[in-house]
Amino acid sequence: MATIYFTPGPAHLYPTVPNHITEAIKAQIPSISHRSQTFMDIHKLAVDGLQALLTIPSDYSIFFLSSATEIWERLLQNCVQHTSFHYVNGAFSQRYFTIANDLGVSPVKYEVPWGQGFPLDPNEIQAETEMINFTHNETSTGVMLPMQSLAAYRQAHPAKLITLDMVSSAPYGQPDWKVVDAAYFSVQKCFGLPAGLGVLILNDSCLAKAAEKKATGRSIGSYHSFLAQQEKYVKHQTVETPNMMGIYLLGKVVQDMLEIGVDNIRKTIRERATLLYSLIEKHPLLTVSVTDKKFQSPTVIVPNLKEGAPSLVDKWKQQGVVVGNGYGKMKGKQLRFANFPSNTDAEFERLIALLEEDM
Amino acid sequence: MATIYFTPGPAHLYPTVPNHITEAIKAQIPSISHRSQTFMDIHKLAVDGLQALLTIPSDYSIFFLSSATEIWERLLQNCVQHTSFHYVNGAFSQRYFTIANDLGVSPVKYEVPWGQGFPLDPNEIQAETEMINFTHNETSTGVMLPMQSLAAYRQAHPAKLITLDMVSSAPYGQPDWKVVDAAYFSVQKCFGLPAGLGVLILNDSCLAKAAEKKATGRSIGSYHSFLAQQEKYVKHQTVETPNMMGIYLLGKVVQDMLEIGVDNIRKTIRERATLLYSLIEKHPLLTVSVTDKKFQSPTVIVPNLKEGAPSLVDKWKQQGVVVGNGYGKMKGKQLRFANFPSNTDAEFERLIALLEEDM
Repeated sequence: MATIYFTPGPAHLYPTVPNHITEAIKAQIPSISHRSQTFMDIHKLAVDGLQALLTIPSDYSIFFLSSATEIWERLLQNCVQHTSFHYVNGAFSQRYFTIANDLGVSPVKYEVPWGQGFPLDPNEIQAETEMINFTHNETSTGVMLPMQSLAAYRQAHPAKLITLDMVSSAPYGQPDWKVVDAAYFSVQKCFGLPAGLGVLILNDSCLAKAAEKKATGRSIGSYHSFLAQQEKYVKHQTVETPNMMGIYLLGKVVQDMLEIGVDNIRKTIRERATLLYSLIEKHPLLTVSVTDKKFQSPTVIVPNLKEGAPSLVDKWKQQGVVVGNGYGKMKGKQLRFANFPSNTDAEFERLIALLEEDM
Repeated sequence: MATIYFTPGPAHLYPTVPNHITEAIKAQIPSISHRSQTFMDIHKLAVDGLQALLTIPSDYSIFFLSSATEIWERLLQNCVQHTSFHYVNGAFSQRYFTIANDLGVSPVKYEVPWGQGFPLDPNEIQAETEMINFTHNETSTGVMLPMQSLAAYRQAHPAKLITLDMVSSAPYGQPDWKVVDAAYFSVQKCFGLPAGLGVLILNDSCLAKAAEKKATGRSIGSYHSFLAQQEKYVKHQTVETPNMMGIYLLGKVVQDMLEIGVDNIRKTIRERATLLYSLIEKHPLLTVSVTDKKFQSPTVIVPNLKEGAPSLVDKWKQQGVVVGNGYGKMKGKQLRFANFPSNTDAEFERLIALLEEDM
């Protein structure tokens, strides 16, 4: 019997993926030219689908890169000359900050302990900041920022770029595109696809900033500079031979999601999250780690293991259900449940049954 | 009936790939953690296999990146502080040079017209050069450099790095590892795999150069700096969640190639190339474009279309055989035949039959 994954790293495959792969191989998609009309149609299907799914205005571009990690590097490389601002409350928001340091852009961070949210006050941002970076959903800790808190930043800082890491929240989260200049995710989380593709949605302000930086003589990278990518994007192509299968599968899964309707998908995630949090609250071995309800993530749910509790990870794995371990320093102290659209109702009920077994 | 691809972009899939994909999906490979023992074993299978296939010394590292285009950027970013030297004789060697310009490393090029080789004299290299870049096989023109010409460069320039672009020649070409510091390819050419993975083989001299550059305070990038990649490589991991399916499939196809034996694979390529070149020489509509036999590529064979010759590409496509068009400015003036290990004897005979139809 197949294993059921509730892991927020690479995750459970979206149920239609195996069939889409079979179809792609039958159609010999991996052998077609990435400059052919067939590929441009594949590219367009993915772009159009994402625009519909996340209500993306048509003047935003959608770039396909290799990972969200690459997207961090490209955002900083293209859009920051002097300094960027980072809200840090876990391993991934910290890693973005570290990458900014590696690239020498003198980043500033506002840090709170793992598992906490932020006051989210636009006055925290210094005048020199060129880019304000939010992690919508911190995958290491299960903290989700309320999307509506971002509007005040746009109002207070109209000329600064605002970016949103939606790695483990898209398409659950709906960005307000009047507020967000760039949002991004990788496909192996909520989209339930094989890893190897990062998706960056960005507007003209980001492209203008890249052009401005380039004009000063500073490097904005080479083949994946935003200007080079934009030139190909408008032709429904990519600069290099991309992960064509990844783009094909993304387009197909987004179509499947559109058929269900994104509102229905979001509703299911919310309902399952409510049930999970309430079971964790009552569970004899677990407590909820994100205590401020305002910041509890519906897509990555992180219970603490009570002192002396057995590792449920191993026990459940033997029964064919794999949940995530606590991340990094929280390994063995927390669990992480991915509550992504890939899992069927029957699969979700298996997780619930395992939780109830110890109650 | 399936189309037979002899294209040197994305190419015909290696015949075992569909089965390997089916097995991978059955084993839920896309859902496993990229930090798990299962993934480390997948990584090791690919690394060990490549070491055996290309007789790579164990002190070389093998990094998995997203494309050969990315590898160009990373090589320059990590190993060049002031200037690099490029042999340019086609679109791809030129593109590498352009990327060096974009990254501001003041590259120098030695350029000959498309379709030609080089005198290959180590005295052409100026003293300041830190890295000498060869394109073993120029995919746009079908020019292959004789591997043995490189030894003189090592002798004349022991302290400079020597890199080798094997995008469309590995594993046909066997680098002399005493001479080559870094060699690289992407998997969608001779390995017959879906695009989205670049493979970089490099030695301690490259890592030392990256450390040296970093120590001067210059940026060597972030997550894909050679130092960051090496730290994970020794643990059979990658920095970010990689294209796990790509690495899995590469390991499997390399095993398949090892079973046939790399010498047998090379022999078949040589024999097929000899037949193709002799047919092109006698063909009423075609001439051989690379006239100096010493530089004729066995893996990418480029005939000129004679003045007034009909486009064989379209005619053959209707019969289920797709060959490459001339690249860029040579579109409509040349054809390109990929002579990669993926095509079976029966498939190759279909191409021969089409060539003979017009003779």
